[in-house]
Amino acid sequence: MATRDDKRQDLRTRIIEAAEARIAADGVQTLRARDVMSDVGAALGGLYNAFEDLDDLVLRVNSQTLARLKVVLQAAIAGNGDPRAALKVLALAYLGFAQDNPRLWSALFEHRYAPGKSIPDWHLAEQTELLAYISAALRPLQPSLTDAALTLRARTFFGAIHGIVASSLAGRFVGVSGGDLAREIAEFLDLLVSGMAEKEEERG
Amino acid sequence: MATRDDKRQDLRTRIIEAAEARIAADGVQTLRARDVMSDVGAALGGLYNAFEDLDDLVLRVNSQTLARLKVVLQAAIAGNGDPRAALKVLALAYLGFAQDNPRLWSALFEHRYAPGKSIPDWHLAEQTELLAYISAALRPLQPSLTDAALTLRARTFFGAIHGIVASSLAGRFVGVSGGDLAREIAEFLDLLVSGMAEKEEERG
Repeated sequence: MATRDDKRQDLRTRIIEAAEARIAADGVQTLRARDVMSDVGAALGGLYNAFEDLDDLVLRVNSQTLARLKVVLQAAIAGNGDPRAALKVLALAYLGFAQDNPRLWSALFEHRYAPGKSIPDWHLAEQTELLAYISAALRPLQPSLTDAALTLRARTFFGAIHGIVASSLAGRFVGVSGGDLAREIAEFLDLLVSGMAEKEEERG
Repeated sequence: MATRDDKRQDLRTRIIEAAEARIAADGVQTLRARDVMSDVGAALGGLYNAFEDLDDLVLRVNSQTLARLKVVLQAAIAGNGDPRAALKVLALAYLGFAQDNPRLWSALFEHRYAPGKSIPDWHLAEQTELLAYISAALRPLQPSLTDAALTLRARTFFGAIHGIVASSLAGRFVGVSGGDLAREIAEFLDLLVSGMAEKEEERG
């Protein structure tokens, strides 16, 4: 027989799934607690038994999105032995994920938490874990960087590739088509990888 | 004697100034028509005599912000004769502008227009004009690019630098301090410029 905890866990799972479906369809901006609870056929108050608040629910959805992104990045670099290609492979996998999941991907960056609410450490740790893929891809290209400099450089690379993807997908500036975007990102990373090789050579 | 048109123009100017001050202080997210009109001491309905709607008002503020950014970029590249340095100079000027005007700068990207409302051509032209600074800085570094490829590459560079600045200033990922950020952007552009030199050498 299902215990009270099992039932609570089951409701949590169903609420996360419903919120994820709504975000995937309409974006995080218009997510409303009453719609989600209506989707799972439970009273509005049930949300606050299962989660702290709507922000907490969005965090859980974002956490699942990061886990999916991780699977995509892992699959992309698995079996890729060329260190000069790893960054490009990661960047193109990131672009593909954003194109395939535009609203879930946007929710990672766009959701505004209630004022004073900070992102919990467990979620920051999930973000940091993904940055580690970039650090690992960068290490053989810039062997002279210290660990701290490598971590900073990984964030810089993430910001750059994210920025290229986000500017284009947001369509604020004149759009770039999907194929152009992939080719541009690949060429941009070729420039960076060539530049890194040159710097390391100079360094000797 | 002030004509009706003069008065209308004066009210428009005062409303834009009030909206700009509110956005600079609190961000575009919380901008409310009633607060702005209360700031200028006019009735709420006056907003809709002077502007189409609140989106139209935000566009005017964003237009002024772009004009200010243009002045900053122009000043940064004036008298800088080294084409290898021009991109770096532009990027650091962009970072400085974002750091000095965080909320006005965010409003350029964050404001969500009403569904179905598209950004007018005159505002897109203002954005394109700023991208031309990047194209001009890139041209001597990648002389083999066609005009179309150069325009696309300028957007890619903008997206990358904007992404690095935005990821850091938003503080979503573990923060990068101001000094680190400027150094990182400078080193990132050094890598790109070295990579571009190498590519052009290979080509020619």
